[in-house]
Amino acid sequence: MIPVRILGTASVLPERAVTTGELAVALGRDPAAIERKTGIRTRHWAPPGTPLAGLGAEALRRALAAAGLEARSLRRLLFVSSTGGDVLIPATANRVAAELGLAGTCDAFDLNNACMGFVSAFDVASRSVATGLGPVAIVVVELGSRIISAEEPRPYLVFGDAAVAAILGAAREGEGVLGAAFANDGTQPSDVWMAHPLVTGVSERVRFESSHQRIAEVALQALKNATRSVLEQARLSLDDVEWVLPHQPNGAMLRLITEMLGVDPARIVPVVDRVGSVGAASIPLSLDCLLRTRTPRAGERLLMVGVGAGVSSGAVLYQVGG
Amino acid sequence: MIPVRILGTASVLPERAVTTGELAVALGRDPAAIERKTGIRTRHWAPPGTPLAGLGAEALRRALAAAGLEARSLRRLLFVSSTGGDVLIPATANRVAAELGLAGTCDAFDLNNACMGFVSAFDVASRSVATGLGPVAIVVVELGSRIISAEEPRPYLVFGDAAVAAILGAAREGEGVLGAAFANDGTQPSDVWMAHPLVTGVSERVRFESSHQRIAEVALQALKNATRSVLEQARLSLDDVEWVLPHQPNGAMLRLITEMLGVDPARIVPVVDRVGSVGAASIPLSLDCLLRTRTPRAGERLLMVGVGAGVSSGAVLYQVGG
Repeated sequence: MIPVRILGTASVLPERAVTTGELAVALGRDPAAIERKTGIRTRHWAPPGTPLAGLGAEALRRALAAAGLEARSLRRLLFVSSTGGDVLIPATANRVAAELGLAGTCDAFDLNNACMGFVSAFDVASRSVATGLGPVAIVVVELGSRIISAEEPRPYLVFGDAAVAAILGAAREGEGVLGAAFANDGTQPSDVWMAHPLVTGVSERVRFESSHQRIAEVALQALKNATRSVLEQARLSLDDVEWVLPHQPNGAMLRLITEMLGVDPARIVPVVDRVGSVGAASIPLSLDCLLRTRTPRAGERLLMVGVGAGVSSGAVLYQVGG
Repeated sequence: MIPVRILGTASVLPERAVTTGELAVALGRDPAAIERKTGIRTRHWAPPGTPLAGLGAEALRRALAAAGLEARSLRRLLFVSSTGGDVLIPATANRVAAELGLAGTCDAFDLNNACMGFVSAFDVASRSVATGLGPVAIVVVELGSRIISAEEPRPYLVFGDAAVAAILGAAREGEGVLGAAFANDGTQPSDVWMAHPLVTGVSERVRFESSHQRIAEVALQALKNATRSVLEQARLSLDDVEWVLPHQPNGAMLRLITEMLGVDPARIVPVVDRVGSVGAASIPLSLDCLLRTRTPRAGERLLMVGVGAGVSSGAVLYQVGG
């Protein structure tokens, strides 16, 4: 076990809620059909040009309050976003730290792993804490709204914005990561893809490069493998796990994932119906919702299992302490 | 001590060497004066459009050979670059792994911390190995040539391209990280800065926003603090450290850093005169050069101390094993 404790989490959704219905109407599609197909009723979009650092700092302030910690107690801050931060140089983590008035007390850098970013960061944070560098804050900000346009309806109809923060610190008895398994398969063509405007010299948007069916097949297989690997590592079965927090790219996929894993939907914490596809913020939003509404008990286990473009996949199995 | 071993390193410089003289002449400046001022004779520039993943994969292949490892033995691959990779989605680490034929055996994600990226990644890799996830490869690729233009002469006259890989794995006796100290100060105005073209909608280049003197003052203070912190953590003095590998933004700064630290220049491994300012690749290039040309002995200590835009700074003190 890697000893670590989730000290606090919090999330921020931009104020403006956009319904799937209004987007469908604007595209001349049937609102009910699109809502049924995506399993998304609303998503939140920040005003164009909203800095990621500001949203992230607000989520972090709330997570620090939930953890009962001063910002100055943080030793490391990981900023996670799928498409870079507010600037290319420096790392946006610095700006988030600065918004909390931190200077000289905390390490800060950016981590990018598409929709897997939070699970990767959770692993880095756990290993940092376990080797003496903590508390560690993870700040995830995804502004899906800045990488979509109505000309590419598939991402346009599902992407949303969200910021989430989680703070990890020293464990109490019997608490921590029971298993962490990661894999990667870049030998397959990328299903979800976004060019770097620094390379192409023109504005870029995210693109879905395969059919829904192909993306679903790849994602389900990766999630299945990650779940099997992490359970084998911990020598447990899925029946030993109380809470399952998979990546939630859309409502239809969440149903398929729940069926594939064969878990009771009551052990899952859906968020995608009200926030849309929020990339690396999906799993921590679900975690934040779990901790606020279900109050897991000591000894219970949470499985965070993710997949993202890359194809990158992995899982962390966490046991709740007292 | 965090037990970890540097298993192998390697570097790749693009074939085309560009002299400071030829750039100075093209800008109507005095070649000798510019060479003296920058302390840079040559830098290497890759052809425009060169994929970072390819250069990184070549450096990694050579580092694996130096370590006597198969690519399949890697458990984690960290890709480091200051300005994102080849694409925004997915993480470029996936492409590097794919170029080595890896599928399903290795975690992969991107880490960005401007010129501090390698030191941050070394810390993440060390803590990963020490908690059971290794070997870990760090692949740094900086293509300075893609973020400069003759219209901004200050970066244009110093930036170069380079790829370096380092592989960390399980320690032998008495080997590992004696101290690791990191800090961050985003409350100061950023000295070195590059906008994100995704945000601005136009092509962007790196900019130096302060005078040489101001950049030097901030960097020297950060390097001094990081050195003091890591030595305090390890309860050692600089006299106990055989090899000092500071960030080398240019030749003039390297001289100032050497003087400020008060170390014998023979304990430093200069690379900036022949590669230019290579961002996060600077320290690992110097490390690679040290390991190839000086053969540190068991018990000797290396100080890697970095500073980068953010302002992000930190140091890792590593003790060589048998």
